[in-house]
Amino acid sequence: MDSPSPDTAAARRHYFAFLPSLPLRLRKADEPLSAAATPPSDHRLQATVAKASEKVPTRSKPLRRGSLIGFAGLAWELLIFGSLALNLVAIALFASPSPSLDKGGTPPLGFDAEASVAEAALFGSPHSEGREEEIVPSEEISVSSTSGSRPASKDAMINLDHGDPTMYESFWKRMGHRGDITIAGWQGISYFSDVTNLCWFLEPEFDHEIRRLHRLVGNAVADGHYIVVGTGSTQLFQAALYALSPPDTPHPLSVVSASPYYSSYPAVTDYLRSGLYQWAGDASAFKGNIYIELVCSPNNPDGSIREAVLNSENGTIIHDLAYYWPQYTPITHAEDHDIMLFTVSKTTGHAGSRLGWALVKDKDVAKRMIKFVELNSIGVSKDSQFRAAKILKAISDGYEHPDPKNKYKLFDFAQLLMSLRWKKLREAVKVSGIFSLPEFQSSYCTFTGKRTETYPAFAWLKCEKEGVEDCESFLRSHKILSRNGKHFGAARKYVRISMLDRDETFDLFVERLSSLT
Amino acid sequence: MDSPSPDTAAARRHYFAFLPSLPLRLRKADEPLSAAATPPSDHRLQATVAKASEKVPTRSKPLRRGSLIGFAGLAWELLIFGSLALNLVAIALFASPSPSLDKGGTPPLGFDAEASVAEAALFGSPHSEGREEEIVPSEEISVSSTSGSRPASKDAMINLDHGDPTMYESFWKRMGHRGDITIAGWQGISYFSDVTNLCWFLEPEFDHEIRRLHRLVGNAVADGHYIVVGTGSTQLFQAALYALSPPDTPHPLSVVSASPYYSSYPAVTDYLRSGLYQWAGDASAFKGNIYIELVCSPNNPDGSIREAVLNSENGTIIHDLAYYWPQYTPITHAEDHDIMLFTVSKTTGHAGSRLGWALVKDKDVAKRMIKFVELNSIGVSKDSQFRAAKILKAISDGYEHPDPKNKYKLFDFAQLLMSLRWKKLREAVKVSGIFSLPEFQSSYCTFTGKRTETYPAFAWLKCEKEGVEDCESFLRSHKILSRNGKHFGAARKYVRISMLDRDETFDLFVERLSSLT
Repeated sequence: MDSPSPDTAAARRHYFAFLPSLPLRLRKADEPLSAAATPPSDHRLQATVAKASEKVPTRSKPLRRGSLIGFAGLAWELLIFGSLALNLVAIALFASPSPSLDKGGTPPLGFDAEASVAEAALFGSPHSEGREEEIVPSEEISVSSTSGSRPASKDAMINLDHGDPTMYESFWKRMGHRGDITIAGWQGISYFSDVTNLCWFLEPEFDHEIRRLHRLVGNAVADGHYIVVGTGSTQLFQAALYALSPPDTPHPLSVVSASPYYSSYPAVTDYLRSGLYQWAGDASAFKGNIYIELVCSPNNPDGSIREAVLNSENGTIIHDLAYYWPQYTPITHAEDHDIMLFTVSKTTGHAGSRLGWALVKDKDVAKRMIKFVELNSIGVSKDSQFRAAKILKAISDGYEHPDPKNKYKLFDFAQLLMSLRWKKLREAVKVSGIFSLPEFQSSYCTFTGKRTETYPAFAWLKCEKEGVEDCESFLRSHKILSRNGKHFGAARKYVRISMLDRDETFDLFVERLSSLT
Repeated sequence: MDSPSPDTAAARRHYFAFLPSLPLRLRKADEPLSAAATPPSDHRLQATVAKASEKVPTRSKPLRRGSLIGFAGLAWELLIFGSLALNLVAIALFASPSPSLDKGGTPPLGFDAEASVAEAALFGSPHSEGREEEIVPSEEISVSSTSGSRPASKDAMINLDHGDPTMYESFWKRMGHRGDITIAGWQGISYFSDVTNLCWFLEPEFDHEIRRLHRLVGNAVADGHYIVVGTGSTQLFQAALYALSPPDTPHPLSVVSASPYYSSYPAVTDYLRSGLYQWAGDASAFKGNIYIELVCSPNNPDGSIREAVLNSENGTIIHDLAYYWPQYTPITHAEDHDIMLFTVSKTTGHAGSRLGWALVKDKDVAKRMIKFVELNSIGVSKDSQFRAAKILKAISDGYEHPDPKNKYKLFDFAQLLMSLRWKKLREAVKVSGIFSLPEFQSSYCTFTGKRTETYPAFAWLKCEKEGVEDCESFLRSHKILSRNGKHFGAARKYVRISMLDRDETFDLFVERLSSLT
């Protein structure tokens, strides 16, 4: 095979543009390269064991060591302390499995150790065999070396570029074995899940638990809709484009979304240069009658509740409802559109399972979407579906079959955590004085039966500081990785920041943000 | 959303062409529709329990009931009986966990009951809630109602159209808990698996077990290659097309493969009408210097060992080595190409996990493939990777850590089963007299250390009967579903037949085939 054409490097830059440019890996200059290439599995296990014994102390460390927050002054220190204390107490109330907590005791310390035993059982003992992997310089890797990991120190790079929902780990650890699954070696061998279902690769239990969860939450009408399962809602988004595009169209169909739109829409629409559809930018500026409009509500990146901005009888709409769950926004009514996309990632936190579903009203559209998934990947991982069925069941059981030993309610936990985080973020923005955030109206939530606030999964942060035109660069100079507003069809004064990372990362972020002036 | 354009129906026929046309669902006319729409999960569990208690009797039923095979005469009855008996004894020798078998006892009968207990544990008790699914007429579903299931009676439809590797179920049932995995609720939450690896969504343990298995079997050189994981080798095939196509090409790159080629190649290349690449048919007939040639070896559908037929310095090659494993063909050397595709489906049988891997020599090509998977599905199911790591480990352990309680050797089991099936198939073809099969040379296999035969995963069957121009139609009239030679760029006198289905299905197939004259 020949090496790629000379155009490849330039093209790669183009195609990689929606990921941030790459900070160098944080290997110290005097660290031997061989150390950086030691077994990831060993590292992983050791890191987990270390984290297990450290977790609670780690969260309170910044409070004990005044030097870490000295830059913010005593008032800020008290503010943070009060906020963290409230956080700990409230989370413990909703999610601790410790019986002692029910009597007002302290949160249990043991669950992370148990989890690390579970991990050891899953992956086996760390082995001493040498790893045979290539040594890959970090600048060759298309994601930052800080992605998915905790910041190693107070002044470490803070990566909130991706919407990696690791904040949900603590909920599932507290759930103990309720979210565990055992899959026998012989299960799920066949390609086929249920050949009596239009979507023949959809596991019946997953189908059942999806419909049950929508009935419980009341966020979407699943009855009367076909369910199409996908490898994340990303695959289903493409399946919907394929399904809505006439196969024999002489010109690609225009795909639009009102700015600011999810930064992946343009790249995922255009990477194969399909003759069926192509990205046509901001829906508000679109002139034409035939199109596919993407409506993301609550919107990624800015959390706003949206409706279609175009209104032609020849236009079609895909509703991306990934964030229409009670932890992010009040559930005001059950959505009932032709194509509605959801993802396990943002519902339960299980992004690594790569699993999403579409509720589809029209049978022919559902069949074309199913055909897409068949051609693209011959169906969807049964292992992920088995597991997600168990995960969704654990969530619904928490509400529908409450018992004294089962106090775990995902949406309550996540909504409380999001509210605390947004409170902290707004306080940090106020202390800093150089940023602004969107404001939201409260609404009556039919799920909680209360008037609730909006706590988006992303903060759409604007730099108001004079002389700063590019907020992403500015934050990066302070070792905060965010996603530039330009990728969302918006100004560079904006960035998108994930609100779903682990506590340590988020707390370090608000601490650092408040110090920027 | 509007309904699709009037062109959709015609287009759907075009796009669905690589699947067989649809036999009506086998619901009897007097069966109420509501019965056909009862809960799949209940059906499934009941069916498993039923199968568990029936399995061994089911296999021998045709032998006890003379009426079932009366059409073939006494000689054929004895032949089948002898063959089945040999089958049972040989499989038991290699794969039974019963200690009594070590002393020459009978195979254990209990393992399927255990398995059904495991399934009950996985899916919970059958619940009596009404299912809320749509009632979908069978003719609306794009796969046959017989896909993935056992034939319900002696004269049922036999579906061998897909290469559904359900023959491996019996091996994994006999493996007991060695292939089981427990995943804790909090594991694999993040999008990221290992950000020090070029392929940041590749689980380290899966990477490790892939390399270990290739070293054990000696079928491919993994060292010096990057591993890219994919949602089946289907996704990786598309990733490779994307990686090898110059992004700014004014004309789509030609994609070719020598006929007969895998029937999915044309459809998967062309379904999005990409501007990057397009299907250009039989490589042997291709005129041009710039292309991507697909080399499948052993070849799907005909089992032949292949090399590229084109030889231009501007051409590139993707080696699809899905079937280069000892159960299908002698391992004569370790392949060492630029891009080599493998799939868990055909290695271990776990098609439902939708997991494959590519060994890629060039870093820039690997990076482009990784980018494709990132854009197409933001990585690959961690659940499938966790599980496959355990499955591959169980296989390698079977060879590298033999002990008296661990007699389970996947490749020995599968090779023996394939050899018995091919023997039966060749006998049936001989008895019938109206078909022919490819012949293969034996070779020295470096893995087994013996001269072994080729036992392809598919039979490339030719109808020699006068007046039969379309073998697929002919077989279908005898209730055998196969894939028409025309989908492989070959004559309609050929069909492809899966050799990887369950014993009951395969035995019924050879029985019926032998009766055709």
